[in-house]
Amino acid sequence: MKISLIGFGNLGQGLTKVLDEKRNYLKEKSGVQLDIVSVVDSGGAVVNEEGIDIGELSEASGSEDSVSEIMEDGELGTSALEVVKNVDSDIMVELTPTSIEDGEPGLTHITEAMNRGKHVVTANKGPLVVAFDELKELEESSGLEFKYSATVGGAIPVLGLAESQMSGDSISEIQGVLNGTTNYILTRMTEENVPFDVVLSEAQELGIAEEDPTLDIEGIDTAAKMTILANSLLDRSVKLEDVDVEGITRIGQEVTQLAKDSGNEVRLVGIASSEKLEVSPKLVPSDNPLVVQGSLNSVTLKTDLAREMTITGFGAGPRETSSALLGDIVDIYKSVEG
Amino acid sequence: MKISLIGFGNLGQGLTKVLDEKRNYLKEKSGVQLDIVSVVDSGGAVVNEEGIDIGELSEASGSEDSVSEIMEDGELGTSALEVVKNVDSDIMVELTPTSIEDGEPGLTHITEAMNRGKHVVTANKGPLVVAFDELKELEESSGLEFKYSATVGGAIPVLGLAESQMSGDSISEIQGVLNGTTNYILTRMTEENVPFDVVLSEAQELGIAEEDPTLDIEGIDTAAKMTILANSLLDRSVKLEDVDVEGITRIGQEVTQLAKDSGNEVRLVGIASSEKLEVSPKLVPSDNPLVVQGSLNSVTLKTDLAREMTITGFGAGPRETSSALLGDIVDIYKSVEG
Repeated sequence: MKISLIGFGNLGQGLTKVLDEKRNYLKEKSGVQLDIVSVVDSGGAVVNEEGIDIGELSEASGSEDSVSEIMEDGELGTSALEVVKNVDSDIMVELTPTSIEDGEPGLTHITEAMNRGKHVVTANKGPLVVAFDELKELEESSGLEFKYSATVGGAIPVLGLAESQMSGDSISEIQGVLNGTTNYILTRMTEENVPFDVVLSEAQELGIAEEDPTLDIEGIDTAAKMTILANSLLDRSVKLEDVDVEGITRIGQEVTQLAKDSGNEVRLVGIASSEKLEVSPKLVPSDNPLVVQGSLNSVTLKTDLAREMTITGFGAGPRETSSALLGDIVDIYKSVEG
Repeated sequence: MKISLIGFGNLGQGLTKVLDEKRNYLKEKSGVQLDIVSVVDSGGAVVNEEGIDIGELSEASGSEDSVSEIMEDGELGTSALEVVKNVDSDIMVELTPTSIEDGEPGLTHITEAMNRGKHVVTANKGPLVVAFDELKELEESSGLEFKYSATVGGAIPVLGLAESQMSGDSISEIQGVLNGTTNYILTRMTEENVPFDVVLSEAQELGIAEEDPTLDIEGIDTAAKMTILANSLLDRSVKLEDVDVEGITRIGQEVTQLAKDSGNEVRLVGIASSEKLEVSPKLVPSDNPLVVQGSLNSVTLKTDLAREMTITGFGAGPRETSSALLGDIVDIYKSVEG
């Protein structure tokens, strides 16, 4: 299958490295033949309809220059939209930066790709929190596959799981600890009894928190993921602005200590049900499977048959996220070629 | 799709009740039309190729008499094997009691059903721990589907998950806490500081442990599940007798207390990798996601991309197990009709 890679930042480079490592394994194990026919970043594109040398592309990772400057045959200045419109491929993998305001440029890329008969795999939350219903309608009317496992919980395959293995279950509520940065901060505050500001600076030094941590610590990132889960698994029709959000900036170390003394931990928890859609700090009993440590993520599904099921794993990181991206790509391969 | 139900004990009755509740939901949500055309227990069978009234069948649950005596048109004395051989159906759901010695009668039922072109769904570990390779070969040569999610971890969909959503990942190790009875005993010993024998009696009174608890407390049940996981997810070719097993009968309350004092808990852990296949009591840090309380189950997969992923949920119970059985049935429906 021909893959068009839109975006060559951390995630795009991570996926390329993983494809470089695993192409043979995938071919042997699942008969999946994957070729990258185009890659584009903000500086330009590389296109080769016979398949770009993935080893060379993998080596081009980590540079500050555009991939179009590093690789032979690079086309400086070619835009992502031009690639989406003009390059022949089976799957577009959309990995441009998330905008929660208008979902762009991802939203246009995804719409244009599906209009041209391409399946889409994305890790970009933006398009899904502003135009979920429109994108699902486009998927349905086109008969194409539109997959976005990587938008929620990185390596945690909660979306696919609920849709396939648990397809007999009716889900009544979703609880999620879905932001590694806030979970790291709360874990450290609890364990070491240090104030929020100190742990935040430490997390920024370690690269766990971003320089502008607003989206994480104000709960917006978790809210975006809960929006996607509510639409996908509860048949709701909500946008990011519908989530009732409170972040963790008001949580002092005395709160985390009081929690600890009573056998609980403070966690930033998203809750979605047919009535609720909220993100806020909550006291959760320490032995509840939802309480995970450090930068782990965790999601609990409450259903009528399985009762409660929790998945825990690494919610971020280019390699971990590639687990979800590759799972989606292989799924599409199987449903198209299988 | 026509379902032939072989075995009408706890699980068969549980699945019937769930089908009675959910037939309309499944039809609306996934377009899945399910009919039970035959059901058989040790006393006889009920057969109706137009579909047995599932409401009536559901009401026949809980009786000590054979379903063939309770239902109108019951055929006293008709055997499971006769039903497998003579009744026309699309899927056989095999739910007879597990024999870890020779896998019978499930093994014969499954083989005969596939030889007659029927897909198979089962919760029966027996056939899988004695003849995994043979059954997988039969599945492959017949082009039929053979699914057994319910054999490991009840409602925890670890088998399907690893095979679909994580299909890009290479799994290197599986760790499982897969026996609710032993986990309940160890949890209670840790929390209440009471001896093994006392908790075991309590568990027996509550119906959590069986009258003869040998298979659970000696680790055999966990070993059977690890055998199935190793064969399915690690491409191994092992039988129950290949597992190095130690149960929990030697664990005294002083051990669970010492563990607790050092921030750990004792758990009966199964481990499978390309080299290892063992079940034994282990000290696990209390904040490890594998450490679950009471009768919960938990499985951790170590992989090259996702690193570590843990699923936690209810590992037993007729309703919970129906989550896995129904997921398998819907999966088959989708791959056949979809």
